[in-house]
Amino acid sequence: MNESKKIPYKIYLEESELPKAWYNLRADMKVKPAPLLNPGTLQPMTAEELEPVFCKELVKQELDDVNPFIEIPEDILNFYKMYRPSPLVRAYCLEEKLQTPAKIYYKFEGNNTSGSHKLNSAIAQAYYAKKQGLKGVTTETGTGQWGTALSMACSYFGLDCKVYMVKVSYEQKPFRREVMRTYGATVTPSPSPDTNVGRKLLAEYPGTTGSLGCAISEAVEAAVSNEGYRYVLGSVLNQVLLHQSVIGLETMAALDKYGVKPDIIIGCAGGGSNLGGLIAPFMGRKLRGEADYRFIAVEPASCPSFTRGKLAYDFADTGKVCPLAKMYTLGSGFIPAPNHAGGLRYHGMSGTLSQLYHDGLMEAVAVSQTAVFKAAEEFARVEGILPAPESSHAIKVAIDEALKCRETGEEKTILFGLSGTGYFDLVAYEQYHDGKMSDYTPTDAELEAGFAGLPKV
Amino acid sequence: MNESKKIPYKIYLEESELPKAWYNLRADMKVKPAPLLNPGTLQPMTAEELEPVFCKELVKQELDDVNPFIEIPEDILNFYKMYRPSPLVRAYCLEEKLQTPAKIYYKFEGNNTSGSHKLNSAIAQAYYAKKQGLKGVTTETGTGQWGTALSMACSYFGLDCKVYMVKVSYEQKPFRREVMRTYGATVTPSPSPDTNVGRKLLAEYPGTTGSLGCAISEAVEAAVSNEGYRYVLGSVLNQVLLHQSVIGLETMAALDKYGVKPDIIIGCAGGGSNLGGLIAPFMGRKLRGEADYRFIAVEPASCPSFTRGKLAYDFADTGKVCPLAKMYTLGSGFIPAPNHAGGLRYHGMSGTLSQLYHDGLMEAVAVSQTAVFKAAEEFARVEGILPAPESSHAIKVAIDEALKCRETGEEKTILFGLSGTGYFDLVAYEQYHDGKMSDYTPTDAELEAGFAGLPKV
Repeated sequence: MNESKKIPYKIYLEESELPKAWYNLRADMKVKPAPLLNPGTLQPMTAEELEPVFCKELVKQELDDVNPFIEIPEDILNFYKMYRPSPLVRAYCLEEKLQTPAKIYYKFEGNNTSGSHKLNSAIAQAYYAKKQGLKGVTTETGTGQWGTALSMACSYFGLDCKVYMVKVSYEQKPFRREVMRTYGATVTPSPSPDTNVGRKLLAEYPGTTGSLGCAISEAVEAAVSNEGYRYVLGSVLNQVLLHQSVIGLETMAALDKYGVKPDIIIGCAGGGSNLGGLIAPFMGRKLRGEADYRFIAVEPASCPSFTRGKLAYDFADTGKVCPLAKMYTLGSGFIPAPNHAGGLRYHGMSGTLSQLYHDGLMEAVAVSQTAVFKAAEEFARVEGILPAPESSHAIKVAIDEALKCRETGEEKTILFGLSGTGYFDLVAYEQYHDGKMSDYTPTDAELEAGFAGLPKV
Repeated sequence: MNESKKIPYKIYLEESELPKAWYNLRADMKVKPAPLLNPGTLQPMTAEELEPVFCKELVKQELDDVNPFIEIPEDILNFYKMYRPSPLVRAYCLEEKLQTPAKIYYKFEGNNTSGSHKLNSAIAQAYYAKKQGLKGVTTETGTGQWGTALSMACSYFGLDCKVYMVKVSYEQKPFRREVMRTYGATVTPSPSPDTNVGRKLLAEYPGTTGSLGCAISEAVEAAVSNEGYRYVLGSVLNQVLLHQSVIGLETMAALDKYGVKPDIIIGCAGGGSNLGGLIAPFMGRKLRGEADYRFIAVEPASCPSFTRGKLAYDFADTGKVCPLAKMYTLGSGFIPAPNHAGGLRYHGMSGTLSQLYHDGLMEAVAVSQTAVFKAAEEFARVEGILPAPESSHAIKVAIDEALKCRETGEEKTILFGLSGTGYFDLVAYEQYHDGKMSDYTPTDAELEAGFAGLPKV
């Protein structure tokens, strides 16, 4: 029902066209993101202070806001070749369904077993841990995307992988847990009796189902108290955005090859890893004055860090064991409504993206979850792919922009990031199909309560 | 940990290299598969007899053993472009893990939302139904791969899709059901009160959890008793093997492009759709005397149609509403042990593959399921992809053959079909991880009981 078109449905770069270096967006930023602070001294964290928790080479990347390109080691490139370059898809079927003159492209990062873009940074972090001679790494996982990706990466390099999984997810999402076990990871429900913080919580609240904040605290404790282990994190950090730049670099190379320039670039934003990776090289061009684009971050109305949060120093974790980061935040005590499906439930946001948003270089919009699932279903039915709820936030706004083009007749080129698949989110799809999904927007009073908990810096 | 190699990890054909015609293997067979028989008259089924149940054009394809190539309509080609050409992967990481001089390739058909090769035939069957002006199609599904694929295909062409899902799967596999609902299909647990056969069964056995045989009968009844509907099937039939030949044609084109000739070609076999599709053009070359290959069909030891079955006319379904087919069969009353995970539980086998096996053109081997899951996990840890239990049967034998090469030093080229992903099979993976998976091989007496039920033809 489509005539044949010059631009293929899927643009695959050759393996030889894989980027050889990650792009460090901070090097091109005139106003740099604010440094991490030691919560005790309120002084910028030094490499020495970070290295007991994080791998040495990753600390170096975390603090580097000078070098624009950082070479991708060959072992990581070889792993990338299992699932990269990922396809850039021209959404011909969606365009036809919407009857829009807009041209829609999406970069699909769900074509690997972890089902999302998280693997791009997981393999890098595992590589540097291995190179440092470590025995293993520890991390936390909520919905399980990051834990799955990390278990795959550790399996490849023969590293031990300890995942603290929020207890309620551990029990309600047994399939994610089994994928991690298939890749050899140890998955522990959090809070657990294995750590001081876990034991303390279990004693105080024997029936607790856990929280991401507690799982982070346990993972950090397990890293610093076990010889040969470090802690790794799947979003928010500068190093993660650096590794994820491979998404944007491939997208830019593929579009350049066909002479296509996007007008609008859209991504969902939780901690910022997917959005930051997709936009990085395009934002670089904008910062250097070489091209202009509209960037739109899409967040859930139930966890609106950009659109209703404050730019402030805050704890990166609810357990308050991590350094202070300056970012758009709802306060480290903020927890989204229990009816909120999928990820994107982090109280804060990447410091790099926060600075760009603050400087007016990027827009943000919040959307309700029923509208998101409606867009997800519409997309799935014509484009085939079953999208993750997180990624569907970007789909929703891409469709909205395409429909505006139908009104105005403008032939805009819209690019969005399809960061993952929804195979493990079918409980949420079921709620949507059965009309049991509800929307929630925090009240101003609830947000004020979150802001009241911000540290005085 | 791999040096860069001349042959890429993943060979992607260009969209322009997609096959333009399916290959009809029967045209090159000297001994044709035996015809379907009318169970009443024991005469070959005519097109007129088949058309009330199946779409007209598909009946034509079913009966055609003369034309070697059948053009793929453009609308189907456009749909194929959403996920095809699928990648042909050189398993460098697996080779290194096994320390084998063998060169291993696999064709990966799990890179679409239905998660398997089933979509290749689903879209073709939906297309011909639409072209005939039908309102919709009916089918049955057990584990749900075929139902998912068909719901995606019907959604694309705006056809109604009624799926009868074995009740026990409907209740135990709610996620597959939700994917089908996302694509707009109606999913009914079978037996249902909607059909005569369903009502009869529910009255006789109020607590029954259903069977594939009953679901087929309900789907056929729903097709013939509803104006504008036809029944469609995802395996066994000649038309299905025809559509699935796209797998083999792409594989052959990709290997030819790099000057690679496989020595051994391996696929799992339930009804034969995946194996038949993969080997078709290679078998054609062998039949025409242009090249030689070893073909190996892999089946579960718990449902050993080839290795322990009989070549005989049998009912294609347990409900005995379908025509008689000559095939390797365990008897239409045979049901694999309840502990058998995944698909490949069909009592019979494609008539085309049955004839090839009978004529000594193909080998077959049966493997136990714990060995299959061990191979699946080993594969997942180095190649990244989480394989379906069905596909893992092929992995198991590919690994066995590669290990033989390590013993002999031979540099054989091994090709296998990775027909799908295991995202919806994690209950079975969990049983394997927890040591709760057991093997079962039917006794000779059990097989004799199955053979005793064969019709007297």
